[in-house]
Amino acid sequence: MTKADAHSHRPIAILCAGGALPFAVVQAMRAAGRPFIVVAIEGIADPELSRLDATWLALGQLGKLFALLRRESCAGVVLVGAMNRPALGSMRIDAIGWTYLFDFLRNVRLGDDAMLRRMMRWFEIQGFPVLGVADVAPELVAPEGRLGKVTPPAKAVTAAIRGFACLDALSPFDVGQAVVAFGERIVAIEGAEGTDAMLARVAEIRREGRLPRGGQDGVLLKAAKVGQSLRVDMPVIGPLTIERAAGAGLAGVIIEAHRVLLLESASVLTAAEKAGLFLFGLKRGEVR
Amino acid sequence: MTKADAHSHRPIAILCAGGALPFAVVQAMRAAGRPFIVVAIEGIADPELSRLDATWLALGQLGKLFALLRRESCAGVVLVGAMNRPALGSMRIDAIGWTYLFDFLRNVRLGDDAMLRRMMRWFEIQGFPVLGVADVAPELVAPEGRLGKVTPPAKAVTAAIRGFACLDALSPFDVGQAVVAFGERIVAIEGAEGTDAMLARVAEIRREGRLPRGGQDGVLLKAAKVGQSLRVDMPVIGPLTIERAAGAGLAGVIIEAHRVLLLESASVLTAAEKAGLFLFGLKRGEVR
Repeated sequence: MTKADAHSHRPIAILCAGGALPFAVVQAMRAAGRPFIVVAIEGIADPELSRLDATWLALGQLGKLFALLRRESCAGVVLVGAMNRPALGSMRIDAIGWTYLFDFLRNVRLGDDAMLRRMMRWFEIQGFPVLGVADVAPELVAPEGRLGKVTPPAKAVTAAIRGFACLDALSPFDVGQAVVAFGERIVAIEGAEGTDAMLARVAEIRREGRLPRGGQDGVLLKAAKVGQSLRVDMPVIGPLTIERAAGAGLAGVIIEAHRVLLLESASVLTAAEKAGLFLFGLKRGEVR
Repeated sequence: MTKADAHSHRPIAILCAGGALPFAVVQAMRAAGRPFIVVAIEGIADPELSRLDATWLALGQLGKLFALLRRESCAGVVLVGAMNRPALGSMRIDAIGWTYLFDFLRNVRLGDDAMLRRMMRWFEIQGFPVLGVADVAPELVAPEGRLGKVTPPAKAVTAAIRGFACLDALSPFDVGQAVVAFGERIVAIEGAEGTDAMLARVAEIRREGRLPRGGQDGVLLKAAKVGQSLRVDMPVIGPLTIERAAGAGLAGVIIEAHRVLLLESASVLTAAEKAGLFLFGLKRGEVR
């Protein structure tokens, strides 16, 4: 019995930040018949969420939020979507919000993971466990093995193990959710710029003729960091990721099975097939 | 007694690839009165090297090269300058060159370091030890401590230790000679794109308002990889590095003392002073 099943008569509050992931979670929960309410963050969430009967709250209105969660008898919350560090002007901080804001500011120099872990504690203190997307919408989690119609060459999978080890080595530094590798040669490492900008860079290096191995066997590798708070921050790929990987001339995409979300999986598979890219879910060693 | 002193009556052959480093090495050796000859690689070295009485050879003319080294009684060779993987069209392979080319092609899938180690062996087999820039022109090696007039904040140096640890963690993967960090948060990691492109990316992230900590205390960290073949591939910074770090809005540059070369150090210091950037040589722990 999963955590979500345990409370299936009470709704889960979907707290929505930016991007398309909130829509995917709503869709999956609705399809599975799991009760939910939608809370959207002003200035960050997609305005289209209004069509899903969302309650809009500003960042900092934690008092209002907790009152809403109690009123609706929520069994827990799930935090989804891209959370760029907000402009202070978009915040409206209520009385309870202030008590947490100090905690936030005290810890703002920590990395994203540490910050998120503290924010989760705020909800737990109020009696609302923070669930992960994998708990409330397991349909979105990448499975193992070949996804789509193109089979990856065996040596691409072998080389990916080394690329994932590189990502593991970066985890203690709270950076690096993706690399681009050609065989065992790592050509690009993702920092704050994000996966799309990294893929654009690889396309540029290709134009300059500076790719190893004739640029034939490039792969985007994407994995969760070791110790990453998967409950609030799971890596995501979607159809655009595939299009950009194709634009960078890569041969395929290998994601970590069970720890990466597949957004709009049908479109992802169509995009991969159209571009002739393989897509593969690689299960990591049990060691981590 | 250094290796260079041991042979001070016989010239060192400076094998010149691209960029400005060959000029700096020639200048330093001339100023120190050390004998040398200049060999420039066609299609890769700066044509201006002709003014320094260079002998031009194509890539692959190893038979001609070894004959020249013997004729001039060279005590050793030093390989300097940027060596992008060459277009096959620029190669003219002589009989002896062919015997090595097979070794090269057999190992082309290895990383840069492994490739360079094999190339060094070719020279050593012929009786010409491969010296490092640090051996023949120690004046170019970055010293320890503050360089220039701006003193770095103590906490910038402390944070740099963590940044260097991140570079260490990447070394087994033969990638990462530089990162940009804001305090302990690593924002960009250098891959095949090089330091300049990484700095341009940080400038872009700044424009998008996505830098941590108000973007106030950014530092470029540059170090040699653990186990890097410093004899043939030492990281280099020059005046342009400083200008681009300033363009990315960074507060300073911290390089690894004794393992990074300072190109045109007078201009570097002037550029740093003009931009208000600190420049600091940090000695790494003895562990590595």
